[in-house]
Amino acid sequence: MTEKTMEKVVALAKNRGFVYPGSEIYGGLANTWDYGPIGVELKNNVKKAWWKKFIQESPFNVGVDCAILMNPQTWVASGHVGGFSDPLMDCKECKERFRADKLIEEYIAEHNMPEAAVDGWSNDEMKQFIDEHQVACPSCGSHNFTDIRQFNLMFKTFQGVTEDAKNVVYLRPETAQGIFVNFKNVQRTSRKKLPFGIGQIGKSFRNEITPGNFTFRTREFEQMELEFFCEPGTDLQWFEYWRSFCKDWLLKLNMDAESIRLRDHEQEELSHYSNATTDIEFKFPFGWGELWGIADRTNFDLRCHQEVSGQDMTYYDQDKNEKYIPYCIEPSLGADRVTLAFLCEAYDEEEVSEGDVRTVLRFHPALAPVKAAVFPLSKKLSEKATEVFALLSKEFNCEFDESGSIGKRYRRQDEIGTPFCITYDFESEEDQSVTVRDRDTMEQVRMPIAQLSAYLKEKMEF
Amino acid sequence: MTEKTMEKVVALAKNRGFVYPGSEIYGGLANTWDYGPIGVELKNNVKKAWWKKFIQESPFNVGVDCAILMNPQTWVASGHVGGFSDPLMDCKECKERFRADKLIEEYIAEHNMPEAAVDGWSNDEMKQFIDEHQVACPSCGSHNFTDIRQFNLMFKTFQGVTEDAKNVVYLRPETAQGIFVNFKNVQRTSRKKLPFGIGQIGKSFRNEITPGNFTFRTREFEQMELEFFCEPGTDLQWFEYWRSFCKDWLLKLNMDAESIRLRDHEQEELSHYSNATTDIEFKFPFGWGELWGIADRTNFDLRCHQEVSGQDMTYYDQDKNEKYIPYCIEPSLGADRVTLAFLCEAYDEEEVSEGDVRTVLRFHPALAPVKAAVFPLSKKLSEKATEVFALLSKEFNCEFDESGSIGKRYRRQDEIGTPFCITYDFESEEDQSVTVRDRDTMEQVRMPIAQLSAYLKEKMEF
Repeated sequence: MTEKTMEKVVALAKNRGFVYPGSEIYGGLANTWDYGPIGVELKNNVKKAWWKKFIQESPFNVGVDCAILMNPQTWVASGHVGGFSDPLMDCKECKERFRADKLIEEYIAEHNMPEAAVDGWSNDEMKQFIDEHQVACPSCGSHNFTDIRQFNLMFKTFQGVTEDAKNVVYLRPETAQGIFVNFKNVQRTSRKKLPFGIGQIGKSFRNEITPGNFTFRTREFEQMELEFFCEPGTDLQWFEYWRSFCKDWLLKLNMDAESIRLRDHEQEELSHYSNATTDIEFKFPFGWGELWGIADRTNFDLRCHQEVSGQDMTYYDQDKNEKYIPYCIEPSLGADRVTLAFLCEAYDEEEVSEGDVRTVLRFHPALAPVKAAVFPLSKKLSEKATEVFALLSKEFNCEFDESGSIGKRYRRQDEIGTPFCITYDFESEEDQSVTVRDRDTMEQVRMPIAQLSAYLKEKMEF
Repeated sequence: MTEKTMEKVVALAKNRGFVYPGSEIYGGLANTWDYGPIGVELKNNVKKAWWKKFIQESPFNVGVDCAILMNPQTWVASGHVGGFSDPLMDCKECKERFRADKLIEEYIAEHNMPEAAVDGWSNDEMKQFIDEHQVACPSCGSHNFTDIRQFNLMFKTFQGVTEDAKNVVYLRPETAQGIFVNFKNVQRTSRKKLPFGIGQIGKSFRNEITPGNFTFRTREFEQMELEFFCEPGTDLQWFEYWRSFCKDWLLKLNMDAESIRLRDHEQEELSHYSNATTDIEFKFPFGWGELWGIADRTNFDLRCHQEVSGQDMTYYDQDKNEKYIPYCIEPSLGADRVTLAFLCEAYDEEEVSEGDVRTVLRFHPALAPVKAAVFPLSKKLSEKATEVFALLSKEFNCEFDESGSIGKRYRRQDEIGTPFCITYDFESEEDQSVTVRDRDTMEQVRMPIAQLSAYLKEKMEF
């Protein structure tokens, strides 16, 4: 196919109802996006596929759904109040504001200098680099920056009537802490024994300075996080388990092995509390981007909460007659990001015949926003075809389309990745059968209406 | 049964993993709640049941999922910046703050005065009533209030680096406006003709002064809203349609007809733009409370957005060759509220034999958090029973329990409303059958393992 570009994906997303710019009639709100009728189904299917494999089918894991607004002490314990910040500086000439670390990274890349872990540098080290190398303002080209200040990335609001310090609450910057603070509640009420995990899907908010790349990095985003608790010493083995499990989940949902890569963090790149970390990255049209961070966080989070809250966070191991704070493996996935990855991965342009190119989204049927589209061959057959639609839509999200030629209708469904198009024709009433056209092969088979449901269901398994 | 009280429901919710107080290890955060492993399944099932009937099976409706953060002009157009506020006053003696309208309502109720629509009163009218009747401070008993001021209920935050007016954004106080601003986008990309609806499930935030009654009124809450667009003049007919549809949805999911009532607003109670409004109320243990507001909002919302944004919000009616702004019917349901209603409705205490009372949650199987629990009769059978669990959990959320007597295990499942308990016994390997115990009748039938999936699926239909 011709090149797969973000421009094409974004244009298709907007035109076919996957994703619109947020608040568009008001000129938008920077970096917000709204999922349209097709997009919401895709994203919901991604979330369902995660929940199915990580919670429902798992003998280990249970789910929770915690509030976005949490007691601010949570963010003291987690380190977000003290340390969750970006290094910012202003250009004194043009007044533009920049992330110092990003400017340095760009400078290093442009000048083919050896790669450096800039995000571990202090403000002074960054300032020194900028002065030494005379890094210029990308906006006006001058060399006159302010000092670097840390800017906290949490969104702040006030709960209650008065806007004073005691009423400050934050929009959570991650879902994980809702899990940690509930560790004892969940363990007690579910009567789970180690090893077990707690998963959550929900919105988080980060006041990023440089969001971008469509829905890849947004200030408001949805996460799918699992915190898997295990006995200390077994953590590296479980880390390997979840590292493979996450990769397999992507592959089973039709992600090409060539489109993803696992990047294991080097010892010096690891957080001080982490025994191991791997990023699963996806090859977006704009380059490799992180989808999933899988980290062995040892007992860091529960230990911090125990210290700050004064509450006991230990687990009583009956077999060993011993109390300890469990270790934790965290696979953390961005729901919007992985949805975008599946959209990019599915995008294809195929030359059907000379000069005739169709755009087709090759989603796994489990992820496809519309599972089947029902077409009456002629408007005279609409009523009967509607019955087939009604039958199938009890189980699956379906569309009904009676306008335009069958060929045009096929193409419309190809563009939203519908795996099966079902045509009700003039023989259908007599033989109680329909024609099922496959999105990928474009082949058609005749099938009894009574078998459709089981056929679709089987195709959706993964 | 003995009286059904909120205390009992809240205690069960906490002990069995439905709902915990938010941020509990830090002493909580007023009025936030976290859904535990059982609660998240219940709430997700409620959301799925809404989506299934209002979106998936509907020939009219499609879904969207819009950002929580929207361009602030949205809230100018919707009236929330100007008018979405509570009347507050302080007691000058004890410095406590109160909602004037609530104080007056309580006064009216206590003194058996004729009911009055206090929420339509001006600040002056309320002040006059309070002075005239010498309404006392509920805290200290004095009669020395400040004037009444309007307090806006939207949560405010800042997007970007500086906390100045131009960076103010609000957390949406309702999901509806995300739908209205996308009306043209959705209509264009879905090619829907009137009448059609757009539905959304998502979080909203209101800085309520008097939240309470467990998860009934919280500052952070989830909504399930449908905006159904139709031709002007057909609106009252569609209002009736959705009014019945909503009621039927509740009844089909095992809500008792005695537990709900429909309250049609009187002419003088209607908003100036509304042609008709009905509240569906549920009889909570603490009294009747609103679940669902169903309103004929005429073309008010789209018209306001057209005026403020300058964008065309009309629909071109091909049949009539005419352009107009559609009318809109809005059934707006609180996801947390209706989840709480289903929990309260399901709660039952049954005397099984003299002095032996079981607590049982009689959820419709479609809503039950756990569809089936699999028990090995003896630990020797665990491995084989696990295979049954693995088979069923591919399709349903199931539990596996091997600890304690079968009787104790039944009771545990009764308390979370599991409709079916499946026991794998010493004959099971030979006859490939298990015993299925019904939650409500407590009767047991023997059934081939191969039939379990179809049996459960049929019970979940609604």
